[in-house]
Amino acid sequence: MNLAKKVVNKMISGDAFSQWLGIEVLEIATGFCKLQLKVREEMTNGFDIAHGGIAYSLADSCLAFAANADGIQAVSIETSISHTKKVVSGDILTATSKEINKSSKTALYYITITNQNKLEIAHFKGTVFRTEKEWFPKK
Amino acid sequence: MNLAKKVVNKMISGDAFSQWLGIEVLEIATGFCKLQLKVREEMTNGFDIAHGGIAYSLADSCLAFAANADGIQAVSIETSISHTKKVVSGDILTATSKEINKSSKTALYYITITNQNKLEIAHFKGTVFRTEKEWFPKK
Amino acid sequence: MNLAKKVVNKMISGDAFSQWLGIEVLEIATGFCKLQLKVREEMTNGFDIAHGGIAYSLADSCLAFAANADGIQAVSIETSISHTKKVVSGDILTATSKEINKSSKTALYYITITNQNKLEIAHFKGTVFRTEKEWFPKK
Amino acid sequence: MNLAKKVVNKMISGDAFSQWLGIEVLEIATGFCKLQLKVREEMTNGFDIAHGGIAYSLADSCLAFAANADGIQAVSIETSISHTKKVVSGDILTATSKEINKSSKTALYYITITNQNKLEIAHFKGTVFRTEKEWFPKK
Repeated sequence: MNLAKKVVNKMISGDAFSQWLGIEVLEIATGFCKLQLKVREEMTNGFDIAHGGIAYSLADSCLAFAANADGIQAVSIETSISHTKKVVSGDILTATSKEINKSSKTALYYITITNQNKLEIAHFKGTVFRTEKEWFPKK
Repeated sequence: MNLAKKVVNKMISGDAFSQWLGIEVLEIATGFCKLQLKVREEMTNGFDIAHGGIAYSLADSCLAFAANADGIQAVSIETSISHTKKVVSGDILTATSKEINKSSKTALYYITITNQNKLEIAHFKGTVFRTEKEWFPKK
Repeated sequence: MNLAKKVVNKMISGDAFSQWLGIEVLEIATGFCKLQLKVREEMTNGFDIAHGGIAYSLADSCLAFAANADGIQAVSIETSISHTKKVVSGDILTATSKEINKSSKTALYYITITNQNKLEIAHFKGTVFRTEKEWFPKK
Repeated sequence: MNLAKKVVNKMISGDAFSQWLGIEVLEIATGFCKLQLKVREEMTNGFDIAHGGIAYSLADSCLAFAANADGIQAVSIETSISHTKKVVSGDILTATSKEINKSSKTALYYITITNQNKLEIAHFKGTVFRTEKEWFPKK
């Protein structure tokens, strides 16, 4: 198994919330991640549409997996999201990351979320701080 | 019951996700909201700390309630969050809103989330678009 | 002259600051704008690199032109920028917009700034509110 | 002279753009900065109001000075600004910083800009990366 997959397997195995969300990893590679989830009734809010926290959480997981996939632990420091289309129960959301910039200390990702009709429903920008800790240190 | 409470009661009654989060409304008034939740194991991620989506979702609910409490429907258009301290299972998070600006069309809120030790764990900024629809139209 | 050009000509004719910046319009169309400027000594800061305000100002002008080019007046409500590479005096910066979303009331643009070596030096996201006022009202 | 003043004197002495803006340092201390400028005709845009880049540039200088005043070099990595009231030529703008969070590697500042009538005209949030370089290394 390559390093990106090993890291994300380890991350997701302990990630109870991503499991509750039903997040499925479609693709993972160094600096790249594609995730999917299906919106359930219990993810909706008082407007009868998905709570904004659902798309954010999917994007935030996508950011974490993309940024950690090179084997160096990274933590989110600043994120923003614009919700551009309504999401309803039953929708299938796909988050796809793009690595915009990566230096030794920080990295920047742009994540687009689309629904099953290829409509873009949210746009997310996230900056991470790259620690120097490795996920699987060589002895 | 005043209008702010009526609106938020109506919003939260249909808000399955805020209910799953265990969100409790501590205070609500026109342009102001204070919410609380207790972090549970199922809200944590692969770093053994609360998923970033939990604090975001709490802040986003706080934004929605504060911005709708005047009886005019408002929808979030752009939000950002900085996660500044770790959150672990068992922590009690309190989100408090501040109305920074309000015009006829848009409004801006700043939301601070603290834990049970009064430590600030996240800082959130949210802009809403104010529709002209009323929550309880006069006939 | 098409509407997009007419609008931007009108906007830039009164835009003293864009003129000070030396902004040149490379392309303009409904929802799209491409601008350029050359960084001068007087645009640099105490780190001997361009002040962050220069790239922001270029992006903000690009946002304004792209968002107004359809003839309906739009005003910026929330913008963010990540500075990803250093900019020095003599650099030639090109800002290119992408319309991410447009509804009757708001629109979202993503703007990338590159230097003369095609390196991306800043990433900008901007949300505008669309008023209903026309730039050239029909009588 | 204390360290904060020494650092900001050094920064501003080479900061041609802050000088063009006419930025005046009202107060400076570790993690805190208060700046002022007077809006001139040449800072306005095609809407006959101050270009959004002016308030941004003032806030960005305020961020840089506040974040560097402890003597450790810090660079901006992500900033956002909401323009909440119009600014016109002749207005006097005051930017005041608040240090929201500071760790060994990053820090977060919130900056409010008011005009001469105490009206808040912009709200800015900025994250910096703290290098380990000192402004005045001990030999």
